[in-house]
Amino acid sequence: MVPHLITALTGPINELEQRMLESMPAIERWFRLEWMEHTPPFYTSVDLRNAGFKLAPVDTNLYPGGFNNLTHEMLPLAVQAAMAAIEKICPEAKNLLLIPEKHTRNSFYLSNIQRLIQIFSSAGLNVRLGTLDDTITEPTDLALADGSTLTIEPLVRTKRRLGLKHFDPCTILLNNDLSAGIPDVLKDLHEQYLLPPLHAGWAVRRKSQHFEAYEEVAKKFAKLLGMDPWLINPMYAVCDEVNFQEGTGAECLQSQVDALLGKIRRKYKEYGINEKPFAIVKADNGTYGMGIMTVRDAKELADLNRRTRNKMSVVKDGQEVNRVIIQEGVPTYEQINDAVAEPVVYMIDRYVVGGFYRVHAERGIDENLNAPGSSFAPLAFAESTQLPRPGVKPGVSAPNRFYMYGVIGRLAMLAASYELEATDPNAEVYN
Amino acid sequence: MVPHLITALTGPINELEQRMLESMPAIERWFRLEWMEHTPPFYTSVDLRNAGFKLAPVDTNLYPGGFNNLTHEMLPLAVQAAMAAIEKICPEAKNLLLIPEKHTRNSFYLSNIQRLIQIFSSAGLNVRLGTLDDTITEPTDLALADGSTLTIEPLVRTKRRLGLKHFDPCTILLNNDLSAGIPDVLKDLHEQYLLPPLHAGWAVRRKSQHFEAYEEVAKKFAKLLGMDPWLINPMYAVCDEVNFQEGTGAECLQSQVDALLGKIRRKYKEYGINEKPFAIVKADNGTYGMGIMTVRDAKELADLNRRTRNKMSVVKDGQEVNRVIIQEGVPTYEQINDAVAEPVVYMIDRYVVGGFYRVHAERGIDENLNAPGSSFAPLAFAESTQLPRPGVKPGVSAPNRFYMYGVIGRLAMLAASYELEATDPNAEVYN
Repeated sequence: MVPHLITALTGPINELEQRMLESMPAIERWFRLEWMEHTPPFYTSVDLRNAGFKLAPVDTNLYPGGFNNLTHEMLPLAVQAAMAAIEKICPEAKNLLLIPEKHTRNSFYLSNIQRLIQIFSSAGLNVRLGTLDDTITEPTDLALADGSTLTIEPLVRTKRRLGLKHFDPCTILLNNDLSAGIPDVLKDLHEQYLLPPLHAGWAVRRKSQHFEAYEEVAKKFAKLLGMDPWLINPMYAVCDEVNFQEGTGAECLQSQVDALLGKIRRKYKEYGINEKPFAIVKADNGTYGMGIMTVRDAKELADLNRRTRNKMSVVKDGQEVNRVIIQEGVPTYEQINDAVAEPVVYMIDRYVVGGFYRVHAERGIDENLNAPGSSFAPLAFAESTQLPRPGVKPGVSAPNRFYMYGVIGRLAMLAASYELEATDPNAEVYN
Repeated sequence: MVPHLITALTGPINELEQRMLESMPAIERWFRLEWMEHTPPFYTSVDLRNAGFKLAPVDTNLYPGGFNNLTHEMLPLAVQAAMAAIEKICPEAKNLLLIPEKHTRNSFYLSNIQRLIQIFSSAGLNVRLGTLDDTITEPTDLALADGSTLTIEPLVRTKRRLGLKHFDPCTILLNNDLSAGIPDVLKDLHEQYLLPPLHAGWAVRRKSQHFEAYEEVAKKFAKLLGMDPWLINPMYAVCDEVNFQEGTGAECLQSQVDALLGKIRRKYKEYGINEKPFAIVKADNGTYGMGIMTVRDAKELADLNRRTRNKMSVVKDGQEVNRVIIQEGVPTYEQINDAVAEPVVYMIDRYVVGGFYRVHAERGIDENLNAPGSSFAPLAFAESTQLPRPGVKPGVSAPNRFYMYGVIGRLAMLAASYELEATDPNAEVYN
């Protein structure tokens, strides 16, 4: 199925698309040089919002689920990228230990794990599943929707290594974002590769650090293309010491939202954009689409109802919210069958391996779509011509549009690489 | 279009397919370890023959044409592989100089060049075309069938570097197999990467050296899988000092053909194969499907007619034949629309990026299909499920069959890597 792109066919995004296509060799070389200096995350998914006048990443996931939403056509790309990734990390590896989320009875999530097993087996590894769930004390079969099963096993930790019974992996791949904190069983593993590194987990990671790194990346990239970085960069601010339950930090929140809405208004004026600005307030440590609200006026914050306060107070695995990021809202003007849609780009190592649209029929263009009720539609790869085609009128070629999405997705991935370098507790400091 | 596989659904090939699928992680790891020790050719295509009882490479091309015969669906794989290749060779590269064959008015061949430009541009390089044709003294446009044009330019050689006017490449990629000899303009380029290396050209290369290396690779691989290497290895012999015009060397030829047919007969008996053995006699330095004949009985060689003698005496670019390889004939039991077909597998760097069937309606199952009148049908990638599926009954899944073809293609590529190491004139010798 090819999604119907209804993105506005005029405006800055089409100019951007055209400039990116014309600059394709320069862009690819730029990435190549960046990857000489920076290590890409092992795998990444990036949520994008295309407003027609602006295209920006809004969330960068370093423990992507949803690989099952990629089409079969995309899998050979994923396998090839996985081969390249393994070769760099642990070329002699036989075994990969994959650690999924604990809520492993969710059959959609299990399909994601099944797909990851398929990708890494095809890339030449024996893959087995270990769980952080202490209640699982022996190999346990979990049923998938297609009738097949997956076996999860209890972890076996020795002083220096982590594995399963009769299974000693070279690499441990987390598909668990560690929102609940870093378990002891994962600490001090110096002989094996643990990917992503522990400080990429939401026990440590902060959205604001990511978008600080993204701003730097966006500025560099905008300089390369000779354009305003705002076209690809969502502005943001941070408030510390916010407690929605107790109402503390509300002043900071209101003044920052007000300031940000003013900045967006000025940008809209500069570009002649006839839209109402809005801001997204998110838990700085949040994930899974939890702890997110849309604010169109700072006054709304003065009088939050109990439900909203509850929603904003706690995110996944009960982690408390005490710091928020206030981000420029980017409306999404893409629709599939009248439902609002946003593209999600998947990467393994430095390579774009596919993507899909997250679609939500009951949400507005200025709301978070990562919520119960969303569905998924494959991205433009189903088209017969998949490579970008320079020379085609902008805004009409799905592969050209997808190339642009892949570029922005990779910019966010590069930002994650900067971010992880900056937050690495074991980094060597050169002065 | 998905080709209709009519391969016999019983026999050793299905066992082989099943064993390969079951051993996929081990096979991929084995390749990974081999590529730690050996450098893959920059790009490779391999012609295979599937006899139902045996699957073997019959030609390994280090200057592949025919990239235009790959489907659009395969291109992202090719781009990703090209990125990986460039990154290893010359990551800072901006420019790639591509040197095509001289007969550049052939529009099929030009489409191949156009496709290569598309792949390497998408991978982040400015690509321009330089020609070895001395009669081209200024930039010249060549028309393609689709109405577009390609510009070829005269080479500009300085003492140390090769380029075009205002174009200084980091890498020079040959798509010209150097059958006519090594031109001076390509010699002594020590500052730039010239790929493939000069000794990969048919001015130097010999088929027999390739199949000697392939035999070594096939034995190693067969040991990994616990099988008879004959199932994937065509037996061969060599005759030096053959002159078809003068009739010299005929004795060697007859005795070698006779001996080889005897060996094949014994193998057929061992496996209960009810086929008539045949041998293929080829120029050891031959290419382009030239200088090839099928021999079913050594006696046929005693009385060659003038036409055959002429055909066997000279190969591409007028190179003389004086050494031949006598190879076990592998019949092809694949057909598309009643025409005989053989798979061709394409690789860039160490990655399989696609393939197609070469189809020839007027040739038999024991004849060379690389001849005027052949056409091309895309390989199984058009199927909705592209990754191999362990557990599916052998012989019925196109992706599973294609996985096996990709493995054998890569074995031949690995053999080419061994071969180029053995024949490298600049190799350092360790004793």
